[in-house]
Amino acid sequence: MRPGRCVIGIDLGGTNIRAALVDERGSVRQRHCLSTGAADGVDAVVSRLVEAARTIVSSSGEEVEAIGIGAPGLVDPSRGVVRIPPNLPGWGEVPLASLIEGALGYPTRVGNDTNMVTLAEWMCGAGRGARHMVCLTLGTGVGGGLVLDSQLYLGARGAAAEIGHMTVEPQGPLCNCGNRGCLESLVGASAIAERARMAIERGEGEEMRRLSGGDHEQLTPEIVARAAECGDEAARRVLYDVGVYLGIALASIVNLLDPEIIVIGGGISHAGDLILEPARAAMEERAMRLEDRHVSVVPAALGDDGGVIGAALFALGDDVDPVQG
Amino acid sequence: MRPGRCVIGIDLGGTNIRAALVDERGSVRQRHCLSTGAADGVDAVVSRLVEAARTIVSSSGEEVEAIGIGAPGLVDPSRGVVRIPPNLPGWGEVPLASLIEGALGYPTRVGNDTNMVTLAEWMCGAGRGARHMVCLTLGTGVGGGLVLDSQLYLGARGAAAEIGHMTVEPQGPLCNCGNRGCLESLVGASAIAERARMAIERGEGEEMRRLSGGDHEQLTPEIVARAAECGDEAARRVLYDVGVYLGIALASIVNLLDPEIIVIGGGISHAGDLILEPARAAMEERAMRLEDRHVSVVPAALGDDGGVIGAALFALGDDVDPVQG
Repeated sequence: MRPGRCVIGIDLGGTNIRAALVDERGSVRQRHCLSTGAADGVDAVVSRLVEAARTIVSSSGEEVEAIGIGAPGLVDPSRGVVRIPPNLPGWGEVPLASLIEGALGYPTRVGNDTNMVTLAEWMCGAGRGARHMVCLTLGTGVGGGLVLDSQLYLGARGAAAEIGHMTVEPQGPLCNCGNRGCLESLVGASAIAERARMAIERGEGEEMRRLSGGDHEQLTPEIVARAAECGDEAARRVLYDVGVYLGIALASIVNLLDPEIIVIGGGISHAGDLILEPARAAMEERAMRLEDRHVSVVPAALGDDGGVIGAALFALGDDVDPVQG
Repeated sequence: MRPGRCVIGIDLGGTNIRAALVDERGSVRQRHCLSTGAADGVDAVVSRLVEAARTIVSSSGEEVEAIGIGAPGLVDPSRGVVRIPPNLPGWGEVPLASLIEGALGYPTRVGNDTNMVTLAEWMCGAGRGARHMVCLTLGTGVGGGLVLDSQLYLGARGAAAEIGHMTVEPQGPLCNCGNRGCLESLVGASAIAERARMAIERGEGEEMRRLSGGDHEQLTPEIVARAAECGDEAARRVLYDVGVYLGIALASIVNLLDPEIIVIGGGISHAGDLILEPARAAMEERAMRLEDRHVSVVPAALGDDGGVIGAALFALGDDVDPVQG
């Protein structure tokens, strides 16, 4: 990529559209955020994506070369088609790349949102320099991305890296995907809230109860994490259990893919070592031991910017290299 | 590879050494098998490998270009080093490639045995033409191999594809690797024999009892499969349960790697659809559904020759392409 080139990266979420002007080194020059308004349907959301890009173009004055979009759910990057995204009601197969290209005239690529975060963390974040990297995002959903042999791995139908739907407990809770005991059903935001609620019903979790104002509906992973940081034993136990489930899945991933580093992002990862420490311990206990193998499990480095940075770098395709230290 | 070129492929097992002269299309021209004599130690086994190769060279009269060896356990293919193979007592780190090269003068490459089977099935067996293929071998151990984006995937330390050590039941039986509930601990040969033994102790499995002569020590997966074919309900149940466990692991693999085809080889796979049918059903029930995705689960095509064919093709390195139908 020529120095000084700029790209627009867009993260299309169920709640917000984040757009950014990103340079060739993955630095964010400008941000714009607006509500997705998913309930208004496909056309309205596409209009807002166009609006977000136009706002960036007109206010930055930079020459924009391309647009990259990260979208939830299954995406076919070769055709730029979004397929039945879970948080966007009414979306079937939507040819998002050509819709945006048609409206704005910039070459546009679309990829899965967690794959975009993965690409960003690998090229200029916590996984920089790795040849084999696994990325997880912990939130309402649990997403994944794989960099194998220095390439984003997409699988036969672009559906690889659904780490949230690896089976961890075959008889575990029913998952949204229809399977039982998926990682997501055990460590996703609603699983954490449910565990916290059960602790409170047992008369534990004084601090969680206080922070949620006694209203179960207000119990979020953030509240559980804050309570745990204040020393709430029940909250710590919830995060510990979640970390162990995560570690069981990580051990299987290590045995299957032998990566150098595992990067954990997403909202719930803010609980940090309260989740990551038990996850590391369970992973190390269960993964095959090799004398010279140490798989790092580290927090993502780019925070909320990962999605837009990755989408921007994805738009540039294969003519960008990982940013060196 | 020039037409007519020949390579020696060797499969180093805990019990037998199989060697073969293989041509550039993966056809076996000649075979030689001898006992490994693992108890005699490293030097004796290396001598037998040399002897096996010499026998092939002298009796075939063909010009041999290279030697490829598949060895159990962890192998570092870049250095040709075998590392603590599970069925070869007394082996630490053994520089097998340079030992054989020194004795015979042919360029020699060493890879993990299941990776060799995977390569063979992909290049000229059941997975021919696939871009993304997963291979499992079911036997005393459960091995795996991955072809991702048309390349044998080895991982950061050559330790990828340990599919037998993915966790399927976190609180399941203790595995040889130290973890609990690994696929191998649930579907390996001794797990199958143990399930059969328990059925007989419950007074079931008339045919299994008859075929094993009432001696539990004689209960093998082959006997269970033969009894099941004769209609023994308890034997069928054992294989069904094994198939379901296999299917749970396959669903996780499908969600993680999105392959086109899964090839199942190894001794236990001779039970065929008695295991594969429940495995397919469990996999399809648990893997994320995509309208246009159908992942085939098929038996290996090359049988016992897979190991030597793969080792031979591996010795030729990257200058061979998959054999076209």
